[in-house]
Amino acid sequence: MVERIAIIGTGLIGGSIGLGLKAAKLPAMEVTGYDESRSALNSARKLGAIDTVAPDLQEAVRDARMVIIATPPLAARAVLQEIAPVLAEGAIVTDTLSTKAEIMRWAKELLPENVSFVGGHPMAGKETPGVEGADPNLFRDKAYCVIPAPDASDGAVKSVMGLVAILGAEAIFVDAAEHDQYAAAISHLPLVVSSALFSLVRGSAAWQDIRPLAGSGFRDLTRLGSGDPQMSHDICATNGEAVIHWIDRLIEELRHYRDLIADDPGELFKAFAAVQLQRDAFLVGADKPQRERIDMPSASEQVSSVLFGGFLTSKYKDYEKRMKEVEKEQRRDRR
Amino acid sequence: MVERIAIIGTGLIGGSIGLGLKAAKLPAMEVTGYDESRSALNSARKLGAIDTVAPDLQEAVRDARMVIIATPPLAARAVLQEIAPVLAEGAIVTDTLSTKAEIMRWAKELLPENVSFVGGHPMAGKETPGVEGADPNLFRDKAYCVIPAPDASDGAVKSVMGLVAILGAEAIFVDAAEHDQYAAAISHLPLVVSSALFSLVRGSAAWQDIRPLAGSGFRDLTRLGSGDPQMSHDICATNGEAVIHWIDRLIEELRHYRDLIADDPGELFKAFAAVQLQRDAFLVGADKPQRERIDMPSASEQVSSVLFGGFLTSKYKDYEKRMKEVEKEQRRDRR
Repeated sequence: MVERIAIIGTGLIGGSIGLGLKAAKLPAMEVTGYDESRSALNSARKLGAIDTVAPDLQEAVRDARMVIIATPPLAARAVLQEIAPVLAEGAIVTDTLSTKAEIMRWAKELLPENVSFVGGHPMAGKETPGVEGADPNLFRDKAYCVIPAPDASDGAVKSVMGLVAILGAEAIFVDAAEHDQYAAAISHLPLVVSSALFSLVRGSAAWQDIRPLAGSGFRDLTRLGSGDPQMSHDICATNGEAVIHWIDRLIEELRHYRDLIADDPGELFKAFAAVQLQRDAFLVGADKPQRERIDMPSASEQVSSVLFGGFLTSKYKDYEKRMKEVEKEQRRDRR
Repeated sequence: MVERIAIIGTGLIGGSIGLGLKAAKLPAMEVTGYDESRSALNSARKLGAIDTVAPDLQEAVRDARMVIIATPPLAARAVLQEIAPVLAEGAIVTDTLSTKAEIMRWAKELLPENVSFVGGHPMAGKETPGVEGADPNLFRDKAYCVIPAPDASDGAVKSVMGLVAILGAEAIFVDAAEHDQYAAAISHLPLVVSSALFSLVRGSAAWQDIRPLAGSGFRDLTRLGSGDPQMSHDICATNGEAVIHWIDRLIEELRHYRDLIADDPGELFKAFAAVQLQRDAFLVGADKPQRERIDMPSASEQVSSVLFGGFLTSKYKDYEKRMKEVEKEQRRDRR
């Protein structure tokens, strides 16, 4: 029997997941796509990111074993609402949104009890939106946050783990609220900084004289400013409090550098030197705490044993232990 | 007769210039290097960035037709002081410092009248310091600011233009004070932002939980933080006022984004959309004003006709006109 996976939103992320799934050459699997934009949808099919184009949203998910929502954050609520009545019993719903607390709430509110929601957030991307930039290796060796709903089935969680493994990413279990705080610091703040730096300098009266001096530094630092504005807007709309918190902290940090430049060259040197050392350590992972590595099953084992049912290999034991801890923490957090 | 070019400071920039000069296979040219670090100097010779290692600074420049100072900004003053008494009559001194007003002042104060100073600033680099990262193509198609001292000879200016052409860069004539303002916006502010963003997030109590979520966005935005801290420090020390001005403006811009996130999602979307459009236009040069292109002589013509004496080709006429305008502006600015 052919199992169907539905990708809702066939842009850069949805398209890259599709290509990654296709590249794995899983047997008896069909990937169906749906996107509000017909041209994005047709491009995704032409590029081989999906096998079939669904005529509408409900048709896309009707017989799907797994539904992957890869829309901009604010669009996901309406998607959940519309697919809820037609999802198959036991369907697994996951997403790729940059913010997680809201979608976890929406899923709880809108999805029926007989389906499982497992939130996801691949920590990878490109500033160029659209399926044209999709890449089956976009997620390779990248972190992929996995946030199971408290009532998600074991099989659903493992299937999403399988998806993560197929894409070559590393699953990271994290609480939705923590995720949003952390992502605000490491992902959403850089997005705002990139945009603000660009709009500031571009808006300068001297722009035409300044622009010829632009080197790779300016281009790299403003890169995220070329991202999809809807995505950027939705991230701020669904994680505003945390983003504002981190903007305020960055303003304080910039003031600190400003004061050092004005008054304390010795400390300024030390600050730059510390950043150089610590960033180099960060890049090679030298500041990472030693942690027991969870021995993950191979992608093909995951697929055969999880996504398509079947028995669990002994390799899951470590992972199950870890999952139980996360669930325990989640229960504690809710109290 | 073999002409000698001396490179003082054989790090990333000095080494890349040396490699670029060697790659041009100019006849009868010898590149001598000097660096305070013996190991940097020996590496530069091993990598082929210089032909010979000078025993000391004065020996390096004694018979040099052109001296290229590629040290961190604050070290350049002592270099000028030490080489001044031994420079050959008519020697051409240029530099690659990131800030220009100070070195123009130092050159005026310290260099004898019978040598010509022509400031330079290649708008290219890498965050990894050291000659090991040197690259003959580092400057290719990049902007290269050229700031002749008011009393620099025509031949000296043209020789530096020749150097720029040999490196494949595009010469941009700009006033030292303007340069420092513009560079503060497009280069020094990004440097501070990169460092501040890294030190802020790295300094967070949750760093060990945040770090697994770091993607290419965080890495790219903090890239400049891995630069040589001495260089960063010196840039702020020699261009502090302008850097502070731009930090203050960025703080205002971040506050503006903060307010939009808090209160005005419609305007927030517009702000992100404008950045995307304008940055894409910037990348393809669509927002560049139409300007008459100066037809530059080829690198080999430049070398034969300028760096090593000889007659000027008619192609220089446009350039000479342009230079006279710049000189006129400089004279006007000094009044």
